[in-house]
Amino acid sequence: MTAEYLLLDPESLPEYLRALGHWDEGPVEVREVSDGNLNHVFIAASPTGERSLAVKQALPWVRVAGPSWPLSPTRADAEARAYRQVERFAPHIIPRVHGYDPDNYALTMEDMSDLAVLRTHLNEGGSYGETSVRIGEFVAGLAFATSDFGMPSGERKALIAASPNPELCKITEDVVLSEPYLEHEHNHWHPGLAELAAEFHADAILRTEVADLRHRFMTSAQALLHGDLHTGSIMVGAREGAEVLRVFDPEFSYVGPVGFDLGLYWGNVLAAEARALALGTERDDAGQLAASWDTFVSELRRLWPGRVDPFFDDAYLERFLRGVWADALGFAGTEMVRRVIGYAHLTDLTTLPDPLPASRAVLLLGRDLILDRGRLDGPGAIRELVGKHYADLGVEK
Amino acid sequence: MTAEYLLLDPESLPEYLRALGHWDEGPVEVREVSDGNLNHVFIAASPTGERSLAVKQALPWVRVAGPSWPLSPTRADAEARAYRQVERFAPHIIPRVHGYDPDNYALTMEDMSDLAVLRTHLNEGGSYGETSVRIGEFVAGLAFATSDFGMPSGERKALIAASPNPELCKITEDVVLSEPYLEHEHNHWHPGLAELAAEFHADAILRTEVADLRHRFMTSAQALLHGDLHTGSIMVGAREGAEVLRVFDPEFSYVGPVGFDLGLYWGNVLAAEARALALGTERDDAGQLAASWDTFVSELRRLWPGRVDPFFDDAYLERFLRGVWADALGFAGTEMVRRVIGYAHLTDLTTLPDPLPASRAVLLLGRDLILDRGRLDGPGAIRELVGKHYADLGVEK
Repeated sequence: MTAEYLLLDPESLPEYLRALGHWDEGPVEVREVSDGNLNHVFIAASPTGERSLAVKQALPWVRVAGPSWPLSPTRADAEARAYRQVERFAPHIIPRVHGYDPDNYALTMEDMSDLAVLRTHLNEGGSYGETSVRIGEFVAGLAFATSDFGMPSGERKALIAASPNPELCKITEDVVLSEPYLEHEHNHWHPGLAELAAEFHADAILRTEVADLRHRFMTSAQALLHGDLHTGSIMVGAREGAEVLRVFDPEFSYVGPVGFDLGLYWGNVLAAEARALALGTERDDAGQLAASWDTFVSELRRLWPGRVDPFFDDAYLERFLRGVWADALGFAGTEMVRRVIGYAHLTDLTTLPDPLPASRAVLLLGRDLILDRGRLDGPGAIRELVGKHYADLGVEK
Repeated sequence: MTAEYLLLDPESLPEYLRALGHWDEGPVEVREVSDGNLNHVFIAASPTGERSLAVKQALPWVRVAGPSWPLSPTRADAEARAYRQVERFAPHIIPRVHGYDPDNYALTMEDMSDLAVLRTHLNEGGSYGETSVRIGEFVAGLAFATSDFGMPSGERKALIAASPNPELCKITEDVVLSEPYLEHEHNHWHPGLAELAAEFHADAILRTEVADLRHRFMTSAQALLHGDLHTGSIMVGAREGAEVLRVFDPEFSYVGPVGFDLGLYWGNVLAAEARALALGTERDDAGQLAASWDTFVSELRRLWPGRVDPFFDDAYLERFLRGVWADALGFAGTEMVRRVIGYAHLTDLTTLPDPLPASRAVLLLGRDLILDRGRLDGPGAIRELVGKHYADLGVEK
């Protein structure tokens, strides 16, 4: 298999950027910083470092696997589409996009190499700062702007028609929302979890609940999602003394259930908390789910008077919020389960001196979130449940 | 406003049919039989009546209103798309389609002028025969074939992307799923219902439940729907001694919640029952909802082993069915309410000697179906509720 478009490399990039008007005649140095599994990423900078840009190009295959694992580069279209939607209401929470080149599936955007991936930052003991508040705002803003609350019915139908993302949705449907509950060659786990993994594979009740969440993921076209909002899709840092946050990599973006983005974030936040407890890190992990949820709710309430369709009244907003809450808990649970007994595990847990107790606690908490998502009535109930599962993770024990 | 395509008329139709290969050189007589609100319909027949065809053309406006009320003729694309899907699994339940001409938004199909519209047939005291069983099979077949149960995930996404129907969905969102619960110029009602109409407009709890159904209609992309499956979208009759049924007019078709089609049918069936009781018609009205539901369920169970995605197991089917049941009751309720205090009323009720008692009973039964859809646990519970509301409709009283 060969790509039917120009695959960029450090040699070709300066000419490419000049041809697209993203770089003038001045000198430019390029380095490849590809880090994720799927794409090429380059940083182009002036020799003094005064000016810099990032270019992200989708390959027609999975980068780390090569041409033997083809994957449509049209995921870059989904990413560009998501950035365009977010630019309408919160341009500063995403990298600045200088341009998207659909012929070559390449985004030219802000260089964020001075920032840290949130997961890495947390794993090293860094604090959340305002991160969860910003994520709550971001999810609420995207949900409102691209739902039937903030977008006229006809425009929404056009957005849905324009936003299918079949290949990347299929990855989520398989890797997150089914394989971990089956015997599947993708799955692996810590040897100390073999019995629990077998228990999960035999649990018919759990499987029905996951099937329900999976069908919601496949059919509930509530709003455009980021689609992969884990702590590896968020950059944090400081510029000129101020906290900076960027949500990036929305290539899994599609129109789905609003609770999915919150749930992915929560699943990762709760895994980070297990790590922090295991290592004795002092940090406000316990307040993050509540901070993001409360901000999501208050931001949606703030935007609500501007809705385009007043038939959805205040009482319906409360109904809608209850549904998002239950969905988010369920998707958080599936994220936690798949990160322990599925395909792609979390460095939060795998790099612990003894990953077993925290992994086990994350797995069992995840299961309870899936099973009890309709009965857990607020962040307080989640704290009780976390307390129960994480009680023995303290460093003293 | 003028159409930017060929508007067919009885004079141009013979040449049109010959050009498309639907008619040979033999003589043909054409008559216009346009009956619905939106489209032109012609019957082309040989002088002896041995051969005949129907041609349905979507106008770029509402036929009965004229060019001052524009409406995109692309609804004909939705209709052709729906017929193509149904042809895959139940070709005999729809009119035979000889061809679709997308340039002129015209379908050439089976002449059904020997059949009767089900509503007319029932209004005249005709019996259901096998109609409800056939409708249950039809809805189950369409639901299975175009859901994530019967269609691979990627194909489904393509179907969703290809099937938006924004203008006609908006009509449903407005006329069925919001206006009847608001003061709106489209609404009208029997003078004897003025107090009840005012009560409905002031009922905040009812409105929240309708908003929930409306949001499901707008976001729940479970399967391709007919989209307008009332008793005016079904033809019945006999040919060569055998019962014949045709489901037609799927121009409201889009990918939505499976319960919507069943609900529209049930709403109309329950209104027909009110008429029958008021007139003393002896007919098995009471068995129709159960017949269509039971057949829907058994047909979906029959198809289930052929599903493409075995993660949706038998237990999930039961979960899914409970959701469809509750949705269908809710949509049945909205259909009944809008047909009494909304824009377009039912001849089932309006042509009664005294429309008031039956209209009132239909309206109140509709409200209960909306409010209690999550608690009514099967056709038996519906019969109890119908018994309560229809108790005084007997001709003796």
